[in-house]
Order: sequence, then structure tokens, then C-alpha cells
Amino acid sequence: MEETNIERASVAALDEILGKSFPVLDHGHVRIIDYMGDDAAIVQAARVSYGAGTKQVHEDRGLIRYLLRNAHTTPFEMCKLKLHIRVPMDCWRQWIRHRTASVNEYSTRYSEAISDQQGTLPGEWRLQTTQNKQGSEGFLDLDLGKELTKSEEIFHQSARDLYQSRIESDVAREQARKDLPLSTYTEAYWSIDLHNLLHFLMLRMDNHAQTEIRQYATVIGEEIVARWVPFVWEAFRDYRLNATRLSGPETELMRLLIAQDQPAAKEWLREHGWVSLKDGKKSREAKELEVKLEALGLRLP
Amino acid sequence: MEETNIERASVAALDEILGKSFPVLDHGHVRIIDYMGDDAAIVQAARVSYGAGTKQVHEDRGLIRYLLRNAHTTPFEMCKLKLHIRVPMDCWRQWIRHRTASVNEYSTRYSEAISDQQGTLPGEWRLQTTQNKQGSEGFLDLDLGKELTKSEEIFHQSARDLYQSRIESDVAREQARKDLPLSTYTEAYWSIDLHNLLHFLMLRMDNHAQTEIRQYATVIGEEIVARWVPFVWEAFRDYRLNATRLSGPETELMRLLIAQDQPAAKEWLREHGWVSLKDGKKSREAKELEVKLEALGLRLP
Amino acid sequence: MEETNIERASVAALDEILGKSFPVLDHGHVRIIDYMGDDAAIVQAARVSYGAGTKQVHEDRGLIRYLLRNAHTTPFEMCKLKLHIRVPMDCWRQWIRHRTASVNEYSTRYSEAISDQQGTLPGEWRLQTTQNKQGSEGFLDLDLGKELTKSEEIFHQSARDLYQSRIESDVAREQARKDLPLSTYTEAYWSIDLHNLLHFLMLRMDNHAQTEIRQYATVIGEEIVARWVPFVWEAFRDYRLNATRLSGPETELMRLLIAQDQPAAKEWLREHGWVSLKDGKKSREAKELEVKLEALGLRLP
Amino acid sequence: MEETNIERASVAALDEILGKSFPVLDHGHVRIIDYMGDDAAIVQAARVSYGAGTKQVHEDRGLIRYLLRNAHTTPFEMCKLKLHIRVPMDCWRQWIRHRTASVNEYSTRYSEAISDQQGTLPGEWRLQTTQNKQGSEGFLDLDLGKELTKSEEIFHQSARDLYQSRIESDVAREQARKDLPLSTYTEAYWSIDLHNLLHFLMLRMDNHAQTEIRQYATVIGEEIVARWVPFVWEAFRDYRLNATRLSGPETELMRLLIAQDQPAAKEWLREHGWVSLKDGKKSREAKELEVKLEALGLRLP
Repeated sequence: MEETNIERASVAALDEILGKSFPVLDHGHVRIIDYMGDDAAIVQAARVSYGAGTKQVHEDRGLIRYLLRNAHTTPFEMCKLKLHIRVPMDCWRQWIRHRTASVNEYSTRYSEAISDQQGTLPGEWRLQTTQNKQGSEGFLDLDLGKELTKSEEIFHQSARDLYQSRIESDVAREQARKDLPLSTYTEAYWSIDLHNLLHFLMLRMDNHAQTEIRQYATVIGEEIVARWVPFVWEAFRDYRLNATRLSGPETELMRLLIAQDQPAAKEWLREHGWVSLKDGKKSREAKELEVKLEALGLRLP
Repeated sequence: MEETNIERASVAALDEILGKSFPVLDHGHVRIIDYMGDDAAIVQAARVSYGAGTKQVHEDRGLIRYLLRNAHTTPFEMCKLKLHIRVPMDCWRQWIRHRTASVNEYSTRYSEAISDQQGTLPGEWRLQTTQNKQGSEGFLDLDLGKELTKSEEIFHQSARDLYQSRIESDVAREQARKDLPLSTYTEAYWSIDLHNLLHFLMLRMDNHAQTEIRQYATVIGEEIVARWVPFVWEAFRDYRLNATRLSGPETELMRLLIAQDQPAAKEWLREHGWVSLKDGKKSREAKELEVKLEALGLRLP
Repeated sequence: MEETNIERASVAALDEILGKSFPVLDHGHVRIIDYMGDDAAIVQAARVSYGAGTKQVHEDRGLIRYLLRNAHTTPFEMCKLKLHIRVPMDCWRQWIRHRTASVNEYSTRYSEAISDQQGTLPGEWRLQTTQNKQGSEGFLDLDLGKELTKSEEIFHQSARDLYQSRIESDVAREQARKDLPLSTYTEAYWSIDLHNLLHFLMLRMDNHAQTEIRQYATVIGEEIVARWVPFVWEAFRDYRLNATRLSGPETELMRLLIAQDQPAAKEWLREHGWVSLKDGKKSREAKELEVKLEALGLRLP
Repeated sequence: MEETNIERASVAALDEILGKSFPVLDHGHVRIIDYMGDDAAIVQAARVSYGAGTKQVHEDRGLIRYLLRNAHTTPFEMCKLKLHIRVPMDCWRQWIRHRTASVNEYSTRYSEAISDQQGTLPGEWRLQTTQNKQGSEGFLDLDLGKELTKSEEIFHQSARDLYQSRIESDVAREQARKDLPLSTYTEAYWSIDLHNLLHFLMLRMDNHAQTEIRQYATVIGEEIVARWVPFVWEAFRDYRLNATRLSGPETELMRLLIAQDQPAAKEWLREHGWVSLKDGKKSREAKELEVKLEALGLRLP
């Protein structure tokens, strides 16, 4: 084993933005504090498998793409990221569900709560979607939005007053905080490895994710990961973000559609209960497939 | 390998309370839903180490005590618990930090928020402690408590009204919830193995834990774990809950105190900066030791 | 909260085989020892999201399929399995890489090593594949196989003799074991939740997995999981085992192929470097796509 | 939020040894490849709890000692280490049980096995201890040791020959390796956060750990962690490595011993079954306590 001195992996494009705040929502931000590893560190970890004598058959970009495409995920764990984030508690409740990260959150037992709440502008009130049980779609009428924003402001002020009056009465901070609205901002250091970060981004950049956390995830992906590990970011877009999964049944049906065998396709849809015999209504699974078919220039019969 | 049929581990004392709600706080509870394993399952897993030919030298209780005393923690992971809990979001924020559990929480994206908030009685408002930065100590004057309870009730009502008015305006549930106070109840299924549960109980039954989560932890420990794995529960009390850790420096000093060598002890305290030369003030570490010494009938000089 | 007594989830088809050994390889086995939860427990955990007032819109099978299809994985963590396995150490080295399980392994510090090694029959010696760096393909000539089996038997005997002579010389067991061949069997209790078990099965039932661990995974999947949670097993086969993932670039190209626009497809292949301009050779990624295309009745131009 | 640019945490004493091999055993080593964070990063993460307005009451060393003493472990997770290790497979089997690390191991499916085995010198053969079931104590007679070393060398040569003959017969590498002795070296990149590393060191620097892994752990602790985070290393030695835990029952008994109430102490020992009424034999727990008592200058009656 050689005694060669080595240097730490570093990424100039990332060092340039170290400590910089990327604003998110009205009072939130994402800041990168530190990191370990880069594209080359992933390649290095993957190559321990090949041993000294193996020829370097893939160049780095190709190897990273191969690893990501084939779910060889362990080399991505060799890269670590540490962020400082400022985020409403409601959004943080979703964020904290990712259990593979390390977290130090601002403590409202030790310190007084942050006095900022996430406010909603009149044009930002979202309608309950009718598509599914969760989620939103479109916006409320602006006049109604103005009323809602007004009542929100009044409520936020009364919440701050209530909290302050408790603090002034010397109520313990751990108890005074019990009525903070979920819109109250909190802060945290959040550290995670790249493999688990990509999983976070996959779920939280998705269009089913709630818009607030999606904005944070998009900043982390596009402003930070894209600078940090550009080969990984490109591969992640190609093989995860923009990928489609076809189930076994969907593959069977698509084969019939591609062969333009409409009768067999219709028969298949009825047999599998994807189209109702009674009223011709499509099942949820059939509707999900339609989105995928459209991207391929196909249609259900 | 024998083809013997076996039966699942079951514990009559636990089966009796399956599904039963143990109330905690004003609207919360803990219910045991399911479990896997018992005291004997821990012994069985530990004994795989000894192999078929080994004599059964310890009886079960002794082996469990040995394992727990010596941090042989893996056999305890073979037991699993599943609870249904109802808990204020403020308390849940602490609970969810235990990352080794599996969680399904009530979703306020899918369903309307639970309308209960944790209320505080006039005599329950706690004073900020002066002992440390966090925590509480003693209670506020009852008259002031009545005022605080009154203003809390008004605030809870206004928070429910605000939420309902948003829902009636067809604001998406995921957005309508943004101002729920942290005192709002949530529910979850929570599953964890016994090793990690003991760690949870150690931290959350501790007298530095906030009283709300401490009440939940105490119910889980005394009502559920004590019935489920009585040998483990006894060992946990002896070797964890009621144990004391002496640091290297503390051991040195205690040796001097036990030998009743007061001059050497004084010298040690000054040298290590545990007692100030200037004003005789004790360091935080010295104060922590005093608590341990008292239990042993010793005192600092 | 009702005080209703409930009963533990139990699955008759699984209770019937509790403790039964399913043989794998020459001296190995898989035995189910205990479990927690069933198909209904997954549904129960998922429905905590919908709250009491929500109508039961999906029946259980549909909901389980929906959850698995859309990567709503947390409810699957509510089910736990405990197996007793007997497996060669070489295979165990791969198995133990799955970090989300609980493990108690037979200890060769406490007990003498198991004297069985995994033997290879003359017809079972596999050729190094030329397709990729790892894996095997086809079998060696039977005459050569006989020689290899013979020399293996001799080696196994000499390894057992060496171990025994050390034990008889009173060498510590922890040191005597240092030259056990990787083919030596070990045993373990292994406990994992269903979500992580499905991930294990996905990777280890795959045709890139080494045949030995694949045999274990297949038994766990087809003999145990299929009996335990039949709806999950069906969904897992449809949406995971038999699913195909199309990358963003693959989707673009397939759109051209489905439209039968051969010139544009050829152009795309050249532009993206999937077919070499020089020699017409296909890239690794192009070859991977060909497998997917075949299932759909398509071909590269 | 300020736009201040910041720099990555770096530790000059560690940068000096980056890439350097610390030899362990006959052909093994530990090399540090990369790291994230330092003593100050732990303080920074801990202080997010105190908020901007809080005075810096503890200096860094004091805060780190406080955190470690009181099991406030999350700030230690903010520091990460990446090592390259070379270690016999037998030792690696213990190492890999620490599930909180990220691992990329040298693959003997992709590459030919490393041809080094860990050899044992004539004076290094250890006797089975009679103190407990596991472990070793003292050494074998040198003449016997010479014989054992000789037979080991012959066995290692025959194992290498067997492996080579399989490779030359074109047996797949994944199968050819099945009879590698556990003494064969492997290599890995191993990455872990500081909190989990301290737990690893606590278990593996302990005198119950097997000597081989203990040598690796000691090098990691004394050569790497001591340079990287000197305040943490000092606190770890004081509060973990050199600490003693007194159980509830031990505390009761010690109180009697310190008060020099011999009759009550004797009575206690008999009542609790720590000294047998029949033959005066001490229980295992009583023997464990004797070790702790000696450090304090006390004795059982």
C-alpha cells in the first residue's frame, strides 16, 4: 500500500455557493454548509469492486449512468451533503419523515420561537382537487383569496400575541409553544448521503408532492446537486425523474396496442376489469396507463 | 432439521389488553394493536449463538439480565410492537425524531384535521426553570393560570373557526391545515422493535423529558412492556432506568472520597476546575456528580 | 376511543407451515418462526390516513395494489417476518449487506463451527460468463466437473481436519475458525419488515443475482410471502418483478419506433451514440433496450 | 439571511495523513480517504438549538463534553468519515454487523480474490479462555505453535492452488471463491458518521472484542479520530471508554459498603442471591461488581 498523500475531493462550482442562501417561500431558504465527495468519489468506490488489474472500460460518466440505471446504489452513499434550511413546520412535518438523514433542529424549548409565519397571498389559495383525495388544483377566486389572506394575517398576529403573553407570564417555553400555528418557521441542519437524497428528490420533486416541499426539493436538486455531481444529476433526470415504469399487465396490453390488434386489446381491458362492461368506465389503473401511452404516441381503443 | 410444527409466541397478559385504550393527556391514548415475540423469543435468538450441544447454563431470566447488562442488544430486536397512538402534534414532533420506528400517521391532506386540541387546566401552566435553558419547574399562580386557560380556549375556538371557514371555501385540505396549532391531536400507527423501544423509553421516561411525552412513555413502559416481557422490564429498570454512569474522572475523585482523603479530594477538584479557586463555585459537572454521590451516601468536601 | 378487545392478525395458511424447513442447496434451509401482520394490517395502516368518516372506496386488494404501484411503502413496514435460515457463509456475505434486518447469527466464538460445507456436484460447476464482468453462464464439461468435485471434497476434508486439530490443541475457537472455507454453513435468525423484504426479494430473485442466494430468495417469496400476504405477492409480481422501467431517452426513442419513423429513429440512435457511426456497434444501453423492446414486439432499426 | 460565503470545515492534522496507510495485522491497513466536519461543526449544529440571541455560555470544549456526557448524540452525526480498509474476511464478518455505515467492498465476483491470507506466527496462537464461553487468554506453547503455523502455511498454499486451478478451468469467479478461507483479505471503502463511529469504537476497543478487530478499532481511534476531533476524543475517553455503569442494585449495595455496614451488606448479598448460602460462591453479577469496586478502593465483605 502506497504512502501517497491525497487531497480531499472538492468541487469548485459548489465551493462558490457555500453558505449562500437560496430563498424559498416567503421567509424560507436552503443553504449548503458542507459536503463530502463528488462524481469521482462515486467512481472510486464503484471501482474497488474491479480491483487493481482491471482495465478502465467505462469512462466516469458512463459508469455513473450504468450504476444509477441498474440500482447499484451503494457508491452514491459515499457522498454526503449538509444543508441549513429554514422551512415552515407544516412542510417540515413531511420532510422529517425521511429517516435516513441526520438532523439538528432549532429548539423552541431552549429559545423563543421564530416569529415568522408562512403567509399566503390572495392569489395563492388552492382549490381542493376532485381528481384524488389529496392534493390541490387551480386557485380560488381572487376576492375570496383576499378575505382569506386578511383573516390569516389577523390569526397570525393573534398567535404571536398569545405566545408573547405566555412568555411574558413566565410560562415555560416548552409549554408556551403549544399553540404555534404549523405555518411557523423552524430551522435545521440536515445532512444526508447522495443515494438517500436522490430518493428524497424523486418523491418530493414529483408532481404529487405538496407544492411547498416541492419548491425546496427543486432548489436542492437544480441549484445544489446539479452543481455538485453533474454526471449524477444528468443520469438521475434520465433514469429516474423522467423514467416510466410499465407493470407486467401494462406490458402485455401495450404489446397488443403496438401490434394494432384492437379487438384483442379491448378483450384484454374487459377481462382485466380495466374497462367496465356495464358503463364503459375506466379503472384507476387504466387512467394511469393513459398518461404513459400518450408519451409514446399510443391510445387505448 | 426437524419438521416439527411450532406455534407463535404469545403472551396471555398482553392478549387481554389488545385493543384497549390507555388514556393519556386530555384527548390522547395509547393502544396496543399487535406484537411479535416475548421473553422466550429473546432467549431463543441469543441461544442460536451457543449451538445445539451447549448446556442451558443460564435460566431465561438470568440470560436476559446478562444480555441487557452487557449491551448484547441484537436479540431484543427480535420482538416487535405495534401501537395506535393519539397525541398532540407538539408532542409528536419529539416522538417522530426516533428514526428506527415504522410510522403511518393520520393524513390531513386526505381527511379533515382532528378537531381536538390539547387544553391546559388553570393549575397546569408550568414556569420556565432557572436550572437550565430547557425544561420547566413548578406552576404559575392559579389566577394567572385561569386567564391563560381562558385565552387558550378562545384561541383554540378561533383556530377551529379559521380551519372550518377555509374548508367551506373549498381551500385544499393540504393548505387549509397550515395554521393548525401544534396542540392539535394527530393519530398514528407506530411499530418498533424492543431494543429501539427501550432506547425510546430510556430517553423519554427520563426526568429531563418534557412532561407530555413522558406521560406517554410511562404508559407504554408500565402498562404494556411490563406485561409483554416481564423479565426484560425488570432488567431494564435495574440496569438502565435506575443505573448511574460514573465517568473516568468521577471514578478517580470517588476513590479519594471513599478513602476519606479530603485534602487530596479538594486538590483534585481545584486542579480539574470543578471548584473555582476564586469564588468556590462548583462547575456543572461537579453539580451533576453531587446527585450521584447522594445516592451513595457521599458528599463533596 | 372504544375499549373493544381485538385479536392479533393471523394467517391460517402460514400457521400451517410455522417451523417447517424448506430445504435449499445441499445442507441449507429456510424456516418461518414468527410473523406480525397480514394483508389486512397493511390496509388498516393505510386507512389511518383516511380517518373515520371516509367511505371504504377501494376494497382491500385494490388498495394494496394502489399502494405498491405508487410507492406508498410505509404501510408495508407494519408487517414483520422472522426466519431461521441455514446458509453457506459465502451466500451469507451477500445476505448481510441488507442492513434493514435484525440478525442473530450462530457464533463460532461460543460454539464449534458447523461441520457442513456446501458441496458442488460434477454437473454444477458454472462457467465464467463473457456477457459481463460478473456472473456465470452454462456449465463446465462433466469430466472436468468430476475432477473439480473430487478436489473440493479433499479440500473440505482437510479444512475440517485442520479445524479439529486446532480445537484439540485448545486453540481459542475465535482463532481456530480463521481458515474455515466460505462454503461452511452458518445459521441465523433473521427478522425484517415486509417493505424491506420486498426490496430484498426484488434484488435477490433477479436473474443477475448469484444462483445460491436466488434459490433462498425464491423459496422465501414463493413458499412464505405468497402464503402470508397473497394480495401483496400478486401486486409485487405485477408491479415489481415483472415490471420494466423506461428511461427518458428510451421513451423518446420508442415513440419514434411506435410511429414507425425509421429514419428519425436511426438519426436518434446515432446522435445519442447508441449506435456507432464507424462500425454500427450498439452501446450497452442500446442492448439493454433491445430486451425491453422484444417484450413489446418492437425492434431497433 | 446573510449571503456570506463560507469555507468547508478542515482539519490540518488530518489533511496531513490523508491517504496514508496505517498497517494492521500482517497484510491489512486503515487509510483515511475523506471526511466532513470537525469539532466546531458539532458545536455549530448543537447551537442551532440556542438561536441567534443566546449568549455563548459554554466554550466549545465544554459544550462538546456536555453533549457527550448527556447523550445528546445528534450533533455528532454531522461529522462523517470515509476510510479505505484492508482486513481479513473473518474480521470483516464482525465489522459488517455495524449497519449504520456505507460500504463498498472489493468484489470477488468481478475480480480475482486477493491472494493474501492472514498468517499466524508461532507465538500468536491463543488459548481458549475458561473465564467465559467466548474469548481467549494466554498463548499456546511455542513448539505447538510452530506446528500449527506450519500446517496453516500448507493449508493456505493448498487453498490458493485450489482457487487458481478453478480459475484456470474457467469456473465462474463467483463460484471459484466458495472455498476461500476466512483468513483471506478483502478491501472496502467504509463511511460512517461520528456518532455511530464512537459506538463502533466503544464496542470494538473493548477488552471483550476479538483482538483482530480491536487492533483496527484502536488505530481508527488513536490515529485518526484523535487527530480529527480532539475535543470529542478526550470526552469519549472520559465519559465512555473509561466510564463505569452502576446498576440500581449495585448502587444500593455500594451505599452499604461505603457506610461500612458489613452485616447489612452480607445480608443484601444473600437476599439477592449474589452469594450462595450453601457454598459461599459468588454469582456472575457479584464478580462483575468486584471489578468496579476495586477501581474505587472497595471490597465485598
